[in-house]
Amino acid sequence: MAVNSLFQGRLIAIGGNEDKADELIVLKRVVREIGKTEFKVGVITTASEDPEQRGKDYHRVFTALGASRIDIFNIRERVQANSRKSAQTIADLDLIFFTGGDQLRLTTLMGGTRIFDAIQKHLENGALIAGTSAGAAVFSDTMIYEGKSEDGLFKGSVLSTSGFGFVDKIIFDTHFMSRGRIGRLIQIVTSNPTCIGVGIGEDSGVILKGDGAAEVVGTGQVIIVDGCGIGVSNIMDIKPGEPIAVENVRIHSLVDGYGYNFKKRRFLTPLSLSIQEDL
Amino acid sequence: MAVNSLFQGRLIAIGGNEDKADELIVLKRVVREIGKTEFKVGVITTASEDPEQRGKDYHRVFTALGASRIDIFNIRERVQANSRKSAQTIADLDLIFFTGGDQLRLTTLMGGTRIFDAIQKHLENGALIAGTSAGAAVFSDTMIYEGKSEDGLFKGSVLSTSGFGFVDKIIFDTHFMSRGRIGRLIQIVTSNPTCIGVGIGEDSGVILKGDGAAEVVGTGQVIIVDGCGIGVSNIMDIKPGEPIAVENVRIHSLVDGYGYNFKKRRFLTPLSLSIQEDL
Repeated sequence: MAVNSLFQGRLIAIGGNEDKADELIVLKRVVREIGKTEFKVGVITTASEDPEQRGKDYHRVFTALGASRIDIFNIRERVQANSRKSAQTIADLDLIFFTGGDQLRLTTLMGGTRIFDAIQKHLENGALIAGTSAGAAVFSDTMIYEGKSEDGLFKGSVLSTSGFGFVDKIIFDTHFMSRGRIGRLIQIVTSNPTCIGVGIGEDSGVILKGDGAAEVVGTGQVIIVDGCGIGVSNIMDIKPGEPIAVENVRIHSLVDGYGYNFKKRRFLTPLSLSIQEDL
Repeated sequence: MAVNSLFQGRLIAIGGNEDKADELIVLKRVVREIGKTEFKVGVITTASEDPEQRGKDYHRVFTALGASRIDIFNIRERVQANSRKSAQTIADLDLIFFTGGDQLRLTTLMGGTRIFDAIQKHLENGALIAGTSAGAAVFSDTMIYEGKSEDGLFKGSVLSTSGFGFVDKIIFDTHFMSRGRIGRLIQIVTSNPTCIGVGIGEDSGVILKGDGAAEVVGTGQVIIVDGCGIGVSNIMDIKPGEPIAVENVRIHSLVDGYGYNFKKRRFLTPLSLSIQEDL
């Protein structure tokens, strides 16, 4: 089982480059998940190298989508993330949105702080948290932060560290098809087949509930990399830099309306997803 | 079953960029497969845009590896490929080597010609045929010749046509990890799960016998994409350009010394490969 019932809320992990100007399929769905006509959004721009611009971009798009209030959290130092006052505002938000950038900025600046604790508690209690690109990668417990796509199947080429861990044993990777990153997830899953890899395409997202049910939204694919059937692999016997052999990695490609049950490791068609939701 | 016992010889499909100057792991193995100290090589440079240079490169390397004669076949027009005289020289070659370039040049210029027929017959009778990059892609019966990696899982993005068909229902793709091409093979295999996709990394190759047993050589990976377990897919229901959903594609990563049985669709460790060879 890759998901514990850790939270009452929902996570939406987006693969980056979601449409912000045209159809807004993914962001409209994010707003629909809030389930309110009046809603408050907190946008955390900490991952970004240009947080002012990124803050403006999302302020514009969430305004267009009907937000009644938008707070921008441009945390650049740990002392800000430890502000009691800021932390107290978190519980009041209907949506917390992490922008893209560098996931290591998020964990380094926010890990173990009051704001992080408030966000985690808010998720446990039923909040909606979304993130795109780095802002989605950080949801993982083991978080990939570096690794060239073409080297993904050479031991040690994928650098990972401890992520926010909103989910247990699920590894989110983003910009997935466009950057050919499947080798990175196969490497992680081979080294511990308990993990399930989730490779999210651009302008696509996966909506995950604490019970392990997930649904895909957007114009691209979400690739599931499941190692539960792995037989032989050489990864424990080879040195860093050597190529990885592995038998029987299971891959699913999910598109808008399809889903996945992370507890049962099961592919869900739109029909089976709707039935599951009824149960 | 994806391989008929079509030939007595061996095929060596190389993923491109094989080392020609340093360790020569792949090309030394090609020469070892000939099994003779005196041997004649035919190099077919037809795929290349710079056939003279490519001919010189392989003349140099096969000379260094001990070839007693090297014929360069720089076929630029179908009339050359229909030359009775050239076709008669084929049966005398111990190794036929197809260089890289554009696989469509090979099929367009050589398909249905006397030289092609002679090569095919020579393979059936026990010859060794190797090819790199385009020169390996052409071995397929359904041959991929175009398709952006990042669009691999959008219907219709992968263009294929009839290849040389030295093997039945095996699709070779090359430069595989470096160009992130797995989506292309997943698309083909989803549209007909009888096919087995073989994604060959650079400086790596797969040695395939007519009985379906294959061994990997080189410094990278050979990825097998096996669709025999596919459950649901949407590919027959969506339009070109729409994203593909597919359940349960099986992936293996093979490295030097590992193998695969294309008849039994079975991953082979170095040990099981050696036992199989004894049988």
